[in-house]
Amino acid sequence: MTTDFAATRALFDLPEGVIYLDGNSLGPLPRAAAARVARTVTEEWGQMLITGWNKAGWMELPSRLGNRVGRLIGAEPGAVVLGDTLSIKVYQALASSFEMNPARKVVLSDRGNFPSDLYIAQGLCRTLGPEYQLKTVAPEEVLGALDETVAVMMITEVDYRTGRRHDMAALTARAHEVGALTIWDLAHSAGALPVEVARGGADFAVGCTYKYLNSGPGGPAFIYVAPRHAEVARPALSGWLGHEAPFAFDLDYRPGAGVERMRVGTPPVIQLAALEASLDIWDQVEMADIRVASLALTDRFIAGVEATCPSLTLATPRDHAARGSQVSFRHAEGYAIMQALIARGVVGDFRAPDILRFGFTPLFINGEDVDKAAAIIAEVMAGDLWDRPEYKTRARVT
Amino acid sequence: MTTDFAATRALFDLPEGVIYLDGNSLGPLPRAAAARVARTVTEEWGQMLITGWNKAGWMELPSRLGNRVGRLIGAEPGAVVLGDTLSIKVYQALASSFEMNPARKVVLSDRGNFPSDLYIAQGLCRTLGPEYQLKTVAPEEVLGALDETVAVMMITEVDYRTGRRHDMAALTARAHEVGALTIWDLAHSAGALPVEVARGGADFAVGCTYKYLNSGPGGPAFIYVAPRHAEVARPALSGWLGHEAPFAFDLDYRPGAGVERMRVGTPPVIQLAALEASLDIWDQVEMADIRVASLALTDRFIAGVEATCPSLTLATPRDHAARGSQVSFRHAEGYAIMQALIARGVVGDFRAPDILRFGFTPLFINGEDVDKAAAIIAEVMAGDLWDRPEYKTRARVT
Repeated sequence: MTTDFAATRALFDLPEGVIYLDGNSLGPLPRAAAARVARTVTEEWGQMLITGWNKAGWMELPSRLGNRVGRLIGAEPGAVVLGDTLSIKVYQALASSFEMNPARKVVLSDRGNFPSDLYIAQGLCRTLGPEYQLKTVAPEEVLGALDETVAVMMITEVDYRTGRRHDMAALTARAHEVGALTIWDLAHSAGALPVEVARGGADFAVGCTYKYLNSGPGGPAFIYVAPRHAEVARPALSGWLGHEAPFAFDLDYRPGAGVERMRVGTPPVIQLAALEASLDIWDQVEMADIRVASLALTDRFIAGVEATCPSLTLATPRDHAARGSQVSFRHAEGYAIMQALIARGVVGDFRAPDILRFGFTPLFINGEDVDKAAAIIAEVMAGDLWDRPEYKTRARVT
Repeated sequence: MTTDFAATRALFDLPEGVIYLDGNSLGPLPRAAAARVARTVTEEWGQMLITGWNKAGWMELPSRLGNRVGRLIGAEPGAVVLGDTLSIKVYQALASSFEMNPARKVVLSDRGNFPSDLYIAQGLCRTLGPEYQLKTVAPEEVLGALDETVAVMMITEVDYRTGRRHDMAALTARAHEVGALTIWDLAHSAGALPVEVARGGADFAVGCTYKYLNSGPGGPAFIYVAPRHAEVARPALSGWLGHEAPFAFDLDYRPGAGVERMRVGTPPVIQLAALEASLDIWDQVEMADIRVASLALTDRFIAGVEATCPSLTLATPRDHAARGSQVSFRHAEGYAIMQALIARGVVGDFRAPDILRFGFTPLFINGEDVDKAAAIIAEVMAGDLWDRPEYKTRARVT
């Protein structure tokens, strides 16, 4: 192992007394991000003003940082660009796919997919017309449901609730056999485990940076377009910064070169600055090391909790190949249990109807944290400490 | 006049020796924004982590700040929401309009519109099918081109190059007479002059916050939906935060209440923090006062430059009613002239092929600045000081 996880842990600003097992929802603050953001605000925006687009290199940030994200997902150089939100990037990938596969009208997904991906597909189908449809099946039925009607398969590799991982290589190969394109949502993969979009043959991939990539709340999304498609794919959301020559101010749209055409509007420079500080940490990390450490942490957590909490039912696969970097347990009182844990410094989250979700992120979580968290869970469950009214009152956001 | 512009000027961090006449492209840094952003990064993200969505109110920022922007454009409470980029919001407004006016297939715009709006319309028409089309006419021909074929008129109120202002009330009234919907792009209006979207009957309005509203590079866009349409309009980009119950994680999309449905993905919390600091200044400002001051500044600048620089041709209307808050001059060597001015601390910008553009923003620009700028322009023009090779080399971004 070449990655020094004790060193990376020291690069994060973690609150005292908290074991943060929610880096899969919002990654913590890299210590360097505060200074990096402050520099962008006061020195770049404040002093350079409009000239920051050139002098501070703001305009190139989406592709420059895109390449650094690309390394973490096995992308070719120049195949990833940052911007917008994951939902927007899903829309672009879907619309491109339908246009590239015009005889077919079905997008295939699974019912374990993150709802926003499904909503975006529904919205696009509604816009395209009644012959277009989103077909969803159970996660284990996707392989069998791939047939010659499918224009594009849209799958999130790791299930946001259970942490169950799809077999990207097998599904992609089968999709291509039947003539379907593929869109991989890497929201719970990028930074969580090794991904090989190029080697695996993915046509499109999308993801967000505020989870495992620690770019902060509302950090931009990314999109990968396989180089073989990059000059063919049409972004649908054809904004000026995806134009071949944005500053020529032509009246007609001409798509830009390669993945640059997936850019839309003005990039969120301040959020990108935070991402840049996080990527400085990622540059020191090998994804293979992350995987070894992540599986050790999730195994250890499963063993610890199962040994002491018989009422919690494991929802995450035991099989390493089918597991992401989180562990979920089911319990009918999951919401209250999670509130009791948060009150005791073990921060995971709850997903309706009954999932307790814990993310494991070796960059800043170690085996000792896992043991402490398991001990606190055992204490809460053994004493029914969650069974108090204040833990059962639901906030709007969980 | 109730607004104290000497007081507002003191609230901005302006670089020494710079007369910043480019607030219409990127507004300057409000002094309080640095601390506000730092608080969001270190105290909210760093210490609250995932609980910031509730504890720091991140989830409500798009509508809470939307209402404050709404006051500046004459919107009803609850009719404006922030997020994404202007191009994305144009797409949502256009797609909604076509769906609300299904018998018609034409979007009417003018050739002075900002190209990204046209590109987005072209992209949407391409997705919708060959019967849909973008029709563009000269700016002065829009009124006459409104007929029963037009589904939606999409117009930028103030021309980004010339500063020419359309008559929003007259065009909207005529559009409604022929049964067309209206989308007003307020990129160069919001914070620049009084806008009355509600009184004027606009159906949709969109705009950005990083120009006159000073939210920083890549700050989010806004969208206004007239309350009479808010429960009918479909966002097309139907993301989870526009869902009626995002955290129910339903598999089917149901649009949220009112303008909230125009939300798409996770909001850019750090950029929104910068906007919040800027809106604290705007809360002290009356738009009627801005208009009086802005016209005085632009009149004074026009008079000063015309008195000394006969080779510069005014491109901005002299008629107050037809003028935004910028002044543009044409010159074949406009690019080199602007570089020479920037080198001397007068920062405007250049727009191809021949436009020198100067924005006037009473929040931080006063009459003394105008006189100084005019004197420097006179000096540069009288001595042909722009005629040097280093001013003629074009950077990628201008």
